[in-house]
Amino acid sequence: MGLIAELEADFVTTDPDVLAGYRFDQAGFGTAGVPMALARPTETEEVVRIMRVASRHRIPVVPQGARTGLSGGANAVDGAILLSLERMTRILDIDEINHTATVQPGVVNAVLSRAVEDKGLFYPPDPGSWESSTIGGNVATNAGGLCCVKYGVTSDFVRELEVVLADGRVLRTGRRTAKGVAGYDLVRLFTGSEGTLGVITEVTVALRPVAEAPLTAVAFFAAPPTACRTVTEYLSSGQRPSVLELMDKPTIDAVAAYRDLGFPDDVEAVLIAQSDRGPAAPHDLEAFAKVARSCGATEVLVASDRAEADMLIAARRLAGVAMEQLGDRLVDDVCVPRSRLAEFFEGVTAISREHDVLIPTCGHAGDGNMHPNVVFDAADPDSVRRGQAAFDAIMALGLRLGGTITGEHGVGMLKRDWLETELGEVGVSVHQAVKQAFDPLGILNPGKVVRPLP
Amino acid sequence: MGLIAELEADFVTTDPDVLAGYRFDQAGFGTAGVPMALARPTETEEVVRIMRVASRHRIPVVPQGARTGLSGGANAVDGAILLSLERMTRILDIDEINHTATVQPGVVNAVLSRAVEDKGLFYPPDPGSWESSTIGGNVATNAGGLCCVKYGVTSDFVRELEVVLADGRVLRTGRRTAKGVAGYDLVRLFTGSEGTLGVITEVTVALRPVAEAPLTAVAFFAAPPTACRTVTEYLSSGQRPSVLELMDKPTIDAVAAYRDLGFPDDVEAVLIAQSDRGPAAPHDLEAFAKVARSCGATEVLVASDRAEADMLIAARRLAGVAMEQLGDRLVDDVCVPRSRLAEFFEGVTAISREHDVLIPTCGHAGDGNMHPNVVFDAADPDSVRRGQAAFDAIMALGLRLGGTITGEHGVGMLKRDWLETELGEVGVSVHQAVKQAFDPLGILNPGKVVRPLP
Repeated sequence: MGLIAELEADFVTTDPDVLAGYRFDQAGFGTAGVPMALARPTETEEVVRIMRVASRHRIPVVPQGARTGLSGGANAVDGAILLSLERMTRILDIDEINHTATVQPGVVNAVLSRAVEDKGLFYPPDPGSWESSTIGGNVATNAGGLCCVKYGVTSDFVRELEVVLADGRVLRTGRRTAKGVAGYDLVRLFTGSEGTLGVITEVTVALRPVAEAPLTAVAFFAAPPTACRTVTEYLSSGQRPSVLELMDKPTIDAVAAYRDLGFPDDVEAVLIAQSDRGPAAPHDLEAFAKVARSCGATEVLVASDRAEADMLIAARRLAGVAMEQLGDRLVDDVCVPRSRLAEFFEGVTAISREHDVLIPTCGHAGDGNMHPNVVFDAADPDSVRRGQAAFDAIMALGLRLGGTITGEHGVGMLKRDWLETELGEVGVSVHQAVKQAFDPLGILNPGKVVRPLP
Repeated sequence: MGLIAELEADFVTTDPDVLAGYRFDQAGFGTAGVPMALARPTETEEVVRIMRVASRHRIPVVPQGARTGLSGGANAVDGAILLSLERMTRILDIDEINHTATVQPGVVNAVLSRAVEDKGLFYPPDPGSWESSTIGGNVATNAGGLCCVKYGVTSDFVRELEVVLADGRVLRTGRRTAKGVAGYDLVRLFTGSEGTLGVITEVTVALRPVAEAPLTAVAFFAAPPTACRTVTEYLSSGQRPSVLELMDKPTIDAVAAYRDLGFPDDVEAVLIAQSDRGPAAPHDLEAFAKVARSCGATEVLVASDRAEADMLIAARRLAGVAMEQLGDRLVDDVCVPRSRLAEFFEGVTAISREHDVLIPTCGHAGDGNMHPNVVFDAADPDSVRRGQAAFDAIMALGLRLGGTITGEHGVGMLKRDWLETELGEVGVSVHQAVKQAFDPLGILNPGKVVRPLP
């Protein structure tokens, strides 16, 4: 039976017009191959069928969620079957006593979040894309978000996975219990592996009782280092804010150009803190205000109610859309030890000047996880070249400060060369051995994360 | 050069009397082989040397910490080099701003805990063995403890590892930053792998600001199910106690026989809760008392100060030593969804009767992680046989209730057969493939966790 015949199923299409719409995720500087088919299964059994055919014919398979990724991890590879999980959208179980939810991978983060909230529960991981990205994609990339500083990242909430292996076998791994050490932690190995080790077809996540509505404070600074010092001092005081975000001057300018938020003049950095500890929240934010002032904040506003809190956090939530107005952009995500944040900002400013590239930078300061937004004009080769040079300089800066090239976006295609620098020779070789153990034919998202064995 | 000559170093001994003292960890029903040498290196470079020699001659290597493990993971294998990390005891760094500590693997948990406490920091993982077990051993087994219900297990705190691979290469993996998704999560893969994938020679853990001194409450129940219902209802109310422990009647009797704590009569179950939320702690414990009473507690005591709190938690801390007085014992550690705790207690009681074995059961009720203590007389073959039958029945019970065979002690030798039942055929095969990728010669703690490939 020929390949195309084997692939024939109502959930598979080879229509080039349809395929074209599935070639890219949202990574800057993205390139993608030309796929041969798009499969949109609704059941694990259909994924098994695809992987069996792919194995038999050694066809590359690129698993995809909502393609909101920022590193090219979901970009097409030449001749590949694009395996979109977007139709596997069933919430299979919400366990109100043990605080878990079991879902198919195509369930959108926001859909799950709202479904569990209706039952008094809370799914904390909240990547910027949460209104459109899927749980499967969040797991595959180990997505982060604003809540990480208090609640942790996606992998901190994944308990059990069903994974279709490269050869079509179905693995269930992990457990639904709160603890467990029976065997190797394969759940964590698959989480963040960007579709290179298996296809995630079911996810059980841990939930928490719903948190109280957060209160918010905003502190304005005349210089980034004072904002950075506020971060380290506040977190050393024993506080665990539910959000602790920083925006630099170019970010503030972009937001102000998009919508006037009435920020004071001469602001060089803004820090936004939230506490969701209910009755303790006003106390937490007063403590924040005190630390910020002692570090040199020019002004601190503390919300007195939810409406005011929402208004104050709006600036941070607007940053993404405001920066989209600036041109094409690459949203980077270096993470450094938070003691090095000030040096990181200084370095990005220097890179921006040296390469004549606008790089508004904001992000999760509490985790040291910053998003330099490299702005460029995709139609102008010189602008692209300068943008890429700035990107490389930022990667090198992050590593020089003891950080990592990616705090939450993943490696994909964009950062594969830089990953090799970060991991070193032994690290790359171990990664390749792991890849080889799970995908001996090299058909799972080939060329992403790790270079194939020579 | 002969093998013995190659091994000759001041950190290696082949003295049979010395070796005899290193053959066993603290697992019940333990068996161990006869080792050929004991190496006690102080530096990574010495571990490298051992692994190179071991690789060249295909000699099994059994990594050991303090040998306080309860599953036989550190037990000797015939002809093996016992690789004790107990002399690698240096605290290399405590980073007071980024809240991390970097240590050699032989640093005792309590030594690290106290060192960081002196700097206002807190290392939460607190296995029962914390006064003697090492950080390396804690990482190798992914140790748990009383604090897990609020703070998580060892793996939630491991950021970066240095690992000597089977062939002697040195891998650094993970990162010191709060977040990071650069490549596969090998840190989690090594954590809990019980020395079967590599030898951990350096660990960087995350710390927290020191917690407030906890307050304690104790609730007494006339029947275990009411205690179990208190656990689920209290945790569903949004509370996150720092400790939530349960003891059954046989445990209470053992403690009472060891030291009179003045518990009321006719108590069938005791629940101990702590809160370390400072000013909010009295409120938390009043909420606990209210839930416990509504579930049918016969009496609830809430400590009004630290001294009273210490007295109330003493019963739980005494349980281990009190049960040691009963005879030989196997400390089991099944973890079930907490909604199934009542059925678990019912099942253990039935197993105890059926096999005529005393099985005091206590543990981390908030996590559903219970420790049935199978008491037997090692000198009486029939008692041993009944104890082993009870152990098997407990494993089966845990799995039947949707749980795992090991919540925090690990697989070692004791639970290897049961691990295969839990993982299933595909799971075992993937475990073997991972083992093969890291240890192609099968020299790293052979026979532990996973059976070798045929």
